[in-house]
Amino acid sequence: MSATKALFLDKVAIVGVGFSAVSRRSGRSVLSLALEAATRAIDDAGIKAGDLDGIATFAWENDSVPAQAVATGLALPGSTYLLDLSMGGQAPSFLVMQAAMAIATGVAEVVLVYRAMNGRSGQRVGSHRTTGGASSYRLPVGLSAYPQFIAQWARRYMIETGATDEDLAAVPISQRRWAALNERAIIKESLDIERYMAAPMIADPFRLPDCTIEVDGACALLITSTSRAKSMRRPPAVIRSAAYHCGPRPGLEAGDALMWPDYSRNYTNLLADRLWGQAGLQPADVDCAQLYDCFSSSVLFAIEGLGLAERGGAGEFVRQGRLPINTNGGLLCEGYLHGMNTVAEAVLQVQGRRTDVLPARPETCLVTSGAMMDGSALILGSA
Amino acid sequence: MSATKALFLDKVAIVGVGFSAVSRRSGRSVLSLALEAATRAIDDAGIKAGDLDGIATFAWENDSVPAQAVATGLALPGSTYLLDLSMGGQAPSFLVMQAAMAIATGVAEVVLVYRAMNGRSGQRVGSHRTTGGASSYRLPVGLSAYPQFIAQWARRYMIETGATDEDLAAVPISQRRWAALNERAIIKESLDIERYMAAPMIADPFRLPDCTIEVDGACALLITSTSRAKSMRRPPAVIRSAAYHCGPRPGLEAGDALMWPDYSRNYTNLLADRLWGQAGLQPADVDCAQLYDCFSSSVLFAIEGLGLAERGGAGEFVRQGRLPINTNGGLLCEGYLHGMNTVAEAVLQVQGRRTDVLPARPETCLVTSGAMMDGSALILGSA
Repeated sequence: MSATKALFLDKVAIVGVGFSAVSRRSGRSVLSLALEAATRAIDDAGIKAGDLDGIATFAWENDSVPAQAVATGLALPGSTYLLDLSMGGQAPSFLVMQAAMAIATGVAEVVLVYRAMNGRSGQRVGSHRTTGGASSYRLPVGLSAYPQFIAQWARRYMIETGATDEDLAAVPISQRRWAALNERAIIKESLDIERYMAAPMIADPFRLPDCTIEVDGACALLITSTSRAKSMRRPPAVIRSAAYHCGPRPGLEAGDALMWPDYSRNYTNLLADRLWGQAGLQPADVDCAQLYDCFSSSVLFAIEGLGLAERGGAGEFVRQGRLPINTNGGLLCEGYLHGMNTVAEAVLQVQGRRTDVLPARPETCLVTSGAMMDGSALILGSA
Repeated sequence: MSATKALFLDKVAIVGVGFSAVSRRSGRSVLSLALEAATRAIDDAGIKAGDLDGIATFAWENDSVPAQAVATGLALPGSTYLLDLSMGGQAPSFLVMQAAMAIATGVAEVVLVYRAMNGRSGQRVGSHRTTGGASSYRLPVGLSAYPQFIAQWARRYMIETGATDEDLAAVPISQRRWAALNERAIIKESLDIERYMAAPMIADPFRLPDCTIEVDGACALLITSTSRAKSMRRPPAVIRSAAYHCGPRPGLEAGDALMWPDYSRNYTNLLADRLWGQAGLQPADVDCAQLYDCFSSSVLFAIEGLGLAERGGAGEFVRQGRLPINTNGGLLCEGYLHGMNTVAEAVLQVQGRRTDVLPARPETCLVTSGAMMDGSALILGSA
């Protein structure tokens, strides 16, 4: 895999973060949530809505509002880049990449990226209406909700590596400690292995604390060139590396996961070389990591796939706690804003705005988006 | 509007074109249509599916198959760029822009772009299930199909400029002549003003010949760097300019068309300066044009918006016939592959593969995608 450096790297930065109110029942339109998060991200960067010329978002099965609606709501004078991706949890880092490509090539100068959803009270991501995609193969055999089939990947991983329930448990136990420090976290109760083992089984091997919590809310990021970022209020979180990958390792012919020979690995194996190579970094070089965690197992998979720990060693790596991971409590505790909040936490960390949590501001932060067959990742760094 | 040249221009080219069988009732899956068009585009460029590392497509209300399904069907070894846009007729030129950005920034090397749909026998674009977008405002007042509300823009244009039924008629009358030379055209019967005036009124001022014909089918393009294109079978259609715009003219605050003061103009007014400026060309410099024509009026709007003719003069411009426009017969005659075939015809022209139709191979060809509030455009040129 090539580590030729993508042209937009280092030239683009994330400069603002905004959240709407996050709840289990917003009582509001998705558009209202999107506009609240967008306005806060714009304010956060110290600019005006009229400075934007691009907006990018993603929706899963039309569960959100299009960029054009947000452009109208913000009363933009005109946009040269509006991107509506039809994508799931693989999207947030990929969406940041797309915005960076637009900025670096001169298509847009200031791009708002958001994810907005009434993910609990409205259309739930796990509701799986059949739309002709992979769900057409899962529904007939009774795999109607995500925990059911992601659990099978987790179990296969445990069989192949000898990983245990305790290894899965390490993820929520660790993340609950961070959540206790995060005012946005919905689940803050401390967790130990006894309570974990006593929690209800959702889909073997996933117990309740292994699963993200669905919420209503929105999260937005503001992206611009590193040079323009200098005039903005917040320090830039510079995009040091970015990659997306879909498909099995080279040499095997299949575009998606249906024919993978080994369901206990994932896309992070396949983009690791490009991700680290472009940044000129090794796994040991990052100061913190925000790893997409729809379920606990996806954190273990990313740790091993990206080389932070050896195969089967991720649970122990998390227990040792030398690398701060999911310092907002993750999607498991802060709620499922589909991983856009995973990127937001990385930005806040690199900007030095979470020194109540990590006293030494991290110079680099790893981010992943996606759980299994395809996904994206970023490395953000301070200027 | 800035004419700063986007970094991907001149560096990326379209090198292959593929169509599936096109019909009014395919009896096949959308995936099958997509794979047929994709395979033909790959063959057309003289490469192998394994050479692809990116796929980009668009769907309207989930009416198509995602890029990942096509990646699987083509047995790609892995992809570094899969783009699924949720977008309508504004998409084709914009999608080419996105692929060009990916190639120029080093994210992918060879990208397949396609649009596949059972647009007549399956989910029709005009069916307007309410998904929370602009259709929620149109359906309650009875505007359930596209001809109904695009017609109002057309009528407003006629009132403001004095354009007549004959000006609208000029578009289908002219395009039927080109269609007679196109083996893919579904409607080839010649048309004169008497027959036009006698045709059934669909939505005033649109008669039957003013409206595109819905079809089942797929169209695919293969895109790569201009340098890599040199080793491929076909001459490159180089991307000389590309732009997208949404929203009213600068100074008016609204992101979409809801608050436009003048519904007889469109997005092409707003991207004209950027489109021409980037290419260093004037409207008189292009040798042919492929203009998105869901309805005849959108051709007139694009001609005036892009400065090919003065305000109110597009009908006469078409009648004079000095510029070859929609040389495949357009969507009105070749069928509604959502404007991806509009781009394809531009590629074939610039590649010199339609010299049966235009004896002098055009050096530059203008392309538009989209009808009213937002849209994209390209200028393609020979190497």
